[in-house]
Amino acid sequence: MSRGPLEGIRVLELGQVYNGPYCGLLLAAQGADVIKIEPPGGEILRRHATSAPGGSYSFLMLNADKRGITLDLRKDRGHEIFLRLVDEADLVVENFREDVAKKLRLTWEVLSARNPRVILASGRGYRTGSEYEGLPALDLTVQAISGHMEITGFPEHPPVKAGATFADMLGSAHLFGAILLALRERDRTGRGQRVEVAMLDAMFPSLMSYASPYLETGVDPGRVGNQHSVPGSPPYGAYPATDGWVTLMCPTNAQYAKFCEVCGDRELASPSLRTGPARGERRAWIDERVARWTRGRRRDDIVRELEAAGIPCAPVRTLAEAVDDPYNVSQGLLRPVDVDLRGTVRTLGSPIQLRDPSSPHRADAPPPRPAPKLGEHNLEVLEELLGLDATDVAALAGDGVV
Amino acid sequence: MSRGPLEGIRVLELGQVYNGPYCGLLLAAQGADVIKIEPPGGEILRRHATSAPGGSYSFLMLNADKRGITLDLRKDRGHEIFLRLVDEADLVVENFREDVAKKLRLTWEVLSARNPRVILASGRGYRTGSEYEGLPALDLTVQAISGHMEITGFPEHPPVKAGATFADMLGSAHLFGAILLALRERDRTGRGQRVEVAMLDAMFPSLMSYASPYLETGVDPGRVGNQHSVPGSPPYGAYPATDGWVTLMCPTNAQYAKFCEVCGDRELASPSLRTGPARGERRAWIDERVARWTRGRRRDDIVRELEAAGIPCAPVRTLAEAVDDPYNVSQGLLRPVDVDLRGTVRTLGSPIQLRDPSSPHRADAPPPRPAPKLGEHNLEVLEELLGLDATDVAALAGDGVV
Repeated sequence: MSRGPLEGIRVLELGQVYNGPYCGLLLAAQGADVIKIEPPGGEILRRHATSAPGGSYSFLMLNADKRGITLDLRKDRGHEIFLRLVDEADLVVENFREDVAKKLRLTWEVLSARNPRVILASGRGYRTGSEYEGLPALDLTVQAISGHMEITGFPEHPPVKAGATFADMLGSAHLFGAILLALRERDRTGRGQRVEVAMLDAMFPSLMSYASPYLETGVDPGRVGNQHSVPGSPPYGAYPATDGWVTLMCPTNAQYAKFCEVCGDRELASPSLRTGPARGERRAWIDERVARWTRGRRRDDIVRELEAAGIPCAPVRTLAEAVDDPYNVSQGLLRPVDVDLRGTVRTLGSPIQLRDPSSPHRADAPPPRPAPKLGEHNLEVLEELLGLDATDVAALAGDGVV
Repeated sequence: MSRGPLEGIRVLELGQVYNGPYCGLLLAAQGADVIKIEPPGGEILRRHATSAPGGSYSFLMLNADKRGITLDLRKDRGHEIFLRLVDEADLVVENFREDVAKKLRLTWEVLSARNPRVILASGRGYRTGSEYEGLPALDLTVQAISGHMEITGFPEHPPVKAGATFADMLGSAHLFGAILLALRERDRTGRGQRVEVAMLDAMFPSLMSYASPYLETGVDPGRVGNQHSVPGSPPYGAYPATDGWVTLMCPTNAQYAKFCEVCGDRELASPSLRTGPARGERRAWIDERVARWTRGRRRDDIVRELEAAGIPCAPVRTLAEAVDDPYNVSQGLLRPVDVDLRGTVRTLGSPIQLRDPSSPHRADAPPPRPAPKLGEHNLEVLEELLGLDATDVAALAGDGVV
């Protein structure tokens, strides 16, 4: 049985924190042999605020199904071993800052001179060669400079970042696509190339619903909380329940009529509110009437009634509800795996699950392998790819190279 | 000159609003021939709150470099023509709700029986076959049910959605990768397959910084505004300037020492605050001292000083600043194009810009073609692919099929 469309593709992943490692995860999920290369002390996320065996929980979530080796690229001997690994690789994935990558001699010039078939995939905060090259890019700062913080939150409160690390993951998902494009080109030309995706760039298209009215009219819609950036017809947004919040909207007049039936509010059902524009003019009043109805009801009861009536709605679920939803395990998004001295850890699966019968995600897919321990596959990988033996590897360890 | 790695790939895009059309945009940017198929009245986004020529501004942003035809798939004659187009296509991209796709006879069974090489790529809100199949999925409701709203905002205020439409774009970016995987499989097997990415699934990995502490400890970190989900050492977050906000952080002790130098605050520089854990215990006090310094300064002056000192920071830019940044045009993220009766419109470019010299994004790349007018390429496409002539197409138009 095929391990997936990327079976036979060997990846050297020098990812750190979320951006590079999540790209490595997407590759591993499709059957690539992902060899994670960490500095001898471990990558940042492995060490993040923890001394637990195997590393931080988020490291364990992002790095299952990879093999792991250590290598000090700053040392000449480490660099030399790295280049020998590049000879055997299809793809190098990294998300260093451009100047750090250069210092580590991890450049397209060096790699392609060594192996013209290799592809270098770089996750960046800002595009190489742009005026922002070299600025440190973390999720918080990218959310700020990209304009996303300014459009998130309530107009009467300060701007706020999205809780989720969208900058990293949007970057990784686009980088994964870029890698597949480069593999396709290589099938045709025999040559590798460098691909790069900047988080700032990957965030930009998601500004759409604010950028388009701004570009059209020159007027910034401003922060609107849970409203639509371009106000349509109410109700739209989040409404309070006795035990939480519910989101709902009535995009069509028919749905609005249905909504009025469900909540039995004769004033809302007034013929004067039958059209969207008419409702738009009485937004505040309608929102208050809707909240008057939702406020006395349980969140899930509201959702059940509205769903039955075909009205788009959803509970604002707590983190616990969202994470503990059995959907995540049944759809392969969370995969339980035993980690030495830690017990069961839930590692992350890929949202890309091919529906072909030969897909590795079918029911009899092999269970995940836990994230590698620090340097776990040093001997295995250096023996398999470079023909080194245990004595060689011990000597390298003694010299602090691995 | 090659138009890109997807030259020669013909796509039938039945996308609507953001999710499907953004995936089509990513494909067109790599040289695919993307034929957008709309119902004779135009897709939802084209008609959204506008009667301007060519459609809404966001439609124009998302649909450049595509050809456009109209076709009523609900009519038997429309379905028949669609199947003849499927004969000539490599890929069908759509983001209908599963039950709508079924009603339109737009299923893997129908398509693959017709053309075993075709790939069907479906953007969904929730995974087909899961308990949520068929629920309407819009950015607002997916942000709510995914747990993302609950972790966004300040703890003392209600949950709030991210202003940006991350659900749509994360779904599209992963779907693009899935399509490339299916093309790769097809190169090997000669057969197409169905790929699908649900927005809910594509959002899940971005919960990482909240999901990992919750899965490890069972404790939900709660909404934390602009703080880190797992509080590290301050300063971290957004601080007020005279004219806006600035984000900053000091991940290392050396950066903290540098920060104290820049702001010249002797109390912050106290030896008792030299370590991260010591600073963590005095978060509120440190945040207040830092704000005391930032509050008297202009946002961009703070950023300039901190950048020079190597401290990660960024301005919280307004939407206008983010969109008007010349970076967007120079990096190909916004591409000016003339649209009939509208003047210059800025269409969206792809964040995936291959750095190979043969890349279509090099300086002499052809200018974008504007989004198609409704049915603009009916005759061109039906003649080229199916051999119909003007009389045939006029007859189809008369019958309301195109």
